[in-house]
Amino acid sequence: MSGIDPYFDTPTELPSEPGRFVRVEQLRGIELPGGPLLRPVLGAGMMVSFAHYEPHTEAPLHAHAEEQIFVMLEGELEMELDGEVRTMRPGDAAVIPPWVPHRVTAGDAPATQLDVFCPPRRGLLDRMR
Amino acid sequence: MSGIDPYFDTPTELPSEPGRFVRVEQLRGIELPGGPLLRPVLGAGMMVSFAHYEPHTEAPLHAHAEEQIFVMLEGELEMELDGEVRTMRPGDAAVIPPWVPHRVTAGDAPATQLDVFCPPRRGLLDRMR
Repeated sequence: MSGIDPYFDTPTELPSEPGRFVRVEQLRGIELPGGPLLRPVLGAGMMVSFAHYEPHTEAPLHAHAEEQIFVMLEGELEMELDGEVRTMRPGDAAVIPPWVPHRVTAGDAPATQLDVFCPPRRGLLDRMR
Repeated sequence: MSGIDPYFDTPTELPSEPGRFVRVEQLRGIELPGGPLLRPVLGAGMMVSFAHYEPHTEAPLHAHAEEQIFVMLEGELEMELDGEVRTMRPGDAAVIPPWVPHRVTAGDAPATQLDVFCPPRRGLLDRMR
């Protein structure tokens, strides 16, 4: 692949499993009472979980062993992270290292965000079974 | 935290580093000539890279050791994954195991997607230094 930017020019080994396309709305949803509806996509070492909040639902203050990156997709959510509270809108994200306490609260409108967990969040793996 | 859904009720240890909020547009961009502008957010075991494509730019067919999950955010992109070609729109995602060949091509309009890499993609870490 000469002439290509080195970012895309890597030696290639054989894959051990196929790629797969995903329609998020077709994923099985896991509803947390009073909290978000989660639609997880499971990888090997990580998990992407699409989280939809109806108005006035909440992920209460909690912490966990898995590293998390939060990405706001649609609408607004109030987020508490390490004691600081911000309104999250599309274009906002947050890095949540292991055991950092955080909370997410929806206001008067629905909202959607995604979380990446590394490794896959155990509490969510348990719900997927 | 009794009375709370067990998903949010986990034993807590002390975090070893603080959480941080991120504005994606304020991240340093890494431009690949003819390809996307990348804005990476680096975690410990993973990386989220926001990728913006101008019209008719491309990530040519390539493969890498890191596991990847692709999430479409805005606009449309043509994606080739394991030999199958699809038009990706918001609500579409793809799981790309290590060494599975993939390509992303922008059409007549700009588009944005994000990639999660686990572990952080080496070629991008090199560019961040």
